[in-house]
Amino acid sequence: RAERVAHFEQDVWSIFTPLALECQAVNLGQGFMNFSPPDFVIEAARDAVTRNDCNQYSHPKGRPRLRNALAKSYSPLFNRTLDAETEVVVTAGANEGIFSIFAGYLDQGSEVILMEPFFDQYISNITMNGGVPVYCPIRPAGDSTKDMSASEWKIDIKELESKITPRSKIIVLNTPHNPIGKVFSREELEEIGALATKHNLLIISDEVYDRLYFDPMKHQRIATLDGLWERTITVGSGGKTFGTTGWRIGWLIGPKALVEPALAAHTRIVFCVNSPLQEAVAVGFEQADERGFFGSQIKAYEHKREKLLNVFRELGLPCTIPEGSYFILVNTDKIQVPEDYKFPDLLWKRPKDFRTCYWLTKEIGVCAIPPTEFYSKPNQVLAENFARFAFCKTDETLDAAAERLLKLK
Amino acid sequence: RAERVAHFEQDVWSIFTPLALECQAVNLGQGFMNFSPPDFVIEAARDAVTRNDCNQYSHPKGRPRLRNALAKSYSPLFNRTLDAETEVVVTAGANEGIFSIFAGYLDQGSEVILMEPFFDQYISNITMNGGVPVYCPIRPAGDSTKDMSASEWKIDIKELESKITPRSKIIVLNTPHNPIGKVFSREELEEIGALATKHNLLIISDEVYDRLYFDPMKHQRIATLDGLWERTITVGSGGKTFGTTGWRIGWLIGPKALVEPALAAHTRIVFCVNSPLQEAVAVGFEQADERGFFGSQIKAYEHKREKLLNVFRELGLPCTIPEGSYFILVNTDKIQVPEDYKFPDLLWKRPKDFRTCYWLTKEIGVCAIPPTEFYSKPNQVLAENFARFAFCKTDETLDAAAERLLKLK
Ligand SMILES: CSCCC(=O)C(=O)O
Ligand SMILES: CSCCC(=O)C(=O)O
Repeated sequence: RAERVAHFEQDVWSIFTPLALECQAVNLGQGFMNFSPPDFVIEAARDAVTRNDCNQYSHPKGRPRLRNALAKSYSPLFNRTLDAETEVVVTAGANEGIFSIFAGYLDQGSEVILMEPFFDQYISNITMNGGVPVYCPIRPAGDSTKDMSASEWKIDIKELESKITPRSKIIVLNTPHNPIGKVFSREELEEIGALATKHNLLIISDEVYDRLYFDPMKHQRIATLDGLWERTITVGSGGKTFGTTGWRIGWLIGPKALVEPALAAHTRIVFCVNSPLQEAVAVGFEQADERGFFGSQIKAYEHKREKLLNVFRELGLPCTIPEGSYFILVNTDKIQVPEDYKFPDLLWKRPKDFRTCYWLTKEIGVCAIPPTEFYSKPNQVLAENFARFAFCKTDETLDAAAERLLKLK
Repeated sequence: RAERVAHFEQDVWSIFTPLALECQAVNLGQGFMNFSPPDFVIEAARDAVTRNDCNQYSHPKGRPRLRNALAKSYSPLFNRTLDAETEVVVTAGANEGIFSIFAGYLDQGSEVILMEPFFDQYISNITMNGGVPVYCPIRPAGDSTKDMSASEWKIDIKELESKITPRSKIIVLNTPHNPIGKVFSREELEEIGALATKHNLLIISDEVYDRLYFDPMKHQRIATLDGLWERTITVGSGGKTFGTTGWRIGWLIGPKALVEPALAAHTRIVFCVNSPLQEAVAVGFEQADERGFFGSQIKAYEHKREKLLNVFRELGLPCTIPEGSYFILVNTDKIQVPEDYKFPDLLWKRPKDFRTCYWLTKEIGVCAIPPTEFYSKPNQVLAENFARFAFCKTDETLDAAAERLLKLK
């Protein structure tokens, strides 16, 4: 067993997703949809597998049709004409895309600045490539015993700068943010961008929830700010965009010179991405606008967000109201887990929120994710009193969850 | 750009596949099929994308249905009852599976013994994970100016042992072999296995062509030899098995303790494999036997092999007659490339076979792959006079290739 994998603990997904299944809990844990992707995308996939050119290797960069569709759809959002040949790379999910960036850029001891909480896979993706994660917390400026907007979770830019050293190579931004639901404001992006420029850092902008936000004016892309295109790789996700988390289609967008090292790594790690589902995602982007798909998807998610928020309001459990993504962070202080509850040993080695979420799954029948998984050890105390609930679920599922959660009253 | 990707040269696939397209050459280069996968597998894929549970994340280990189908299909071939829960891991193609093994096992400076020629991606997969490839050639024992069986390409077992050092961790076996087409005999596997046992090496047995061999008695699995299950991870490929190279479904089979480090790496690199095509490959294995699929596929390939061999016989170009895989190594000594031919500069930096294959693609209109790509620099001289032709193509394509190749007469 190599050193790079020796210290891995069991990840939160392989604890809670099987647990939810086993307890027949309503699963608001892992962020996947339990409703169908749009028909026109499914139809495109059905069609693609009948065409033999869609069943064989793609170019490592991705299929031309998908790269063209991405370039076309994203050009207006980036305020520039993206070159499908050199500025777009299709990856085996955003995860493999991010892994490949780290593989393409990090040397032993290179530091990566993360804002905390962070998507948990970042850490292994950094350390497996010899890098060292360095953490800066995003703190709730408001009173977390009351409802607050995700925008009240803030970075202290001085604190962020204090984390930068001569070994810092990359800063990772995630907006809309998982698990906070924060959409970074233009001012925040400018501050972060200025730091990156001053200290010559590559920016990874993880924007996998970029089509899922609740204030159309707000989602900004750091790559569109003055001088930042040149140092930013933006990461996107077909799974989040079209409700197909199991298709493993992601992408990187950035200047040729910037994406090349990631492409070099990606080509060796997976060679290429599955072809037929690339084709289907291409059709998704080609038709999304005329069908008004992204707008109606946002409306549907807005409705789901309200549905779930109302449950916590009724229970008097304070929430962070997400501006984007499909997660709600809930303050669980008032949830009374019986003191003598028998938890599996494993859970006593984890922070308190693991036990709260276990108990919720097992006894209330609703699965949520413990957000300390998204924190470095020293800062896990900041998150022990929260649980993350996903609302990328059918209305029926959200109703069933509501019914069970109201037992907490 | 990280050191681990700094020295990568352009890979042979991204030179020759686009070149073939550009010249409208008949492409016998990269090993992908230009005929359809079997209807029952296509139908299963069409069905899977309509079922929402097939469109969301799978377990990182792979979907239970595919793991069960693999365990059932492979148990008789391994002479043991494989445990679908712990002894089978689904990967994003065999490539990512192999990468993940190296990621799970190699530390800085760990050595991996390769037999040469080797599938080119091994090298980057090793070096990106801090490992050092160590080479031992497979040499043609026969007279390569005449046709010979792939079985005449042999390892000198003493030479192989001389490559082992205290830093050796893994030995990679590839049978049926790409590009030689050699199927290792039981005696050869026993010798290699004995070395691995004596020096406590992990064996990676890359058997992606395990359903494509031309002598049903011969394909042996090293993991079935006495005491070798315990130290072997066998790698398989849905793309090769069902003619779906673009689906990116591969697998690892081995004892729980052995596959776990690879699974740990795989889970962080790609999280999971695309779900609907896993489902389709599961159906493929479930139905293959009753449909007699593997047998009739072998018959079809046997026919294609003969078709292509006959062309080279007619041209008087000596071949290595493959016992498995879908590749023929052809001795190109007698092909006269004009001395004053204008090659792109890039090709003058590569061994002679790159120029032969370029010229064949451009002037004869048939693309082949230069096998020096599968050799370490010092041993490239061993392969400069060969070209690799793939016969995983429709009969029409093979006929078109024949017509063009016969211009060489
Ligand atoms: C690696 S699976 C996690 C899915 C997801 O993005 C989430 O729930 O945060
Ligand atoms: C990495 S694509 C190569 C396909 C293949 O296996 C081959 O042609 O050898």
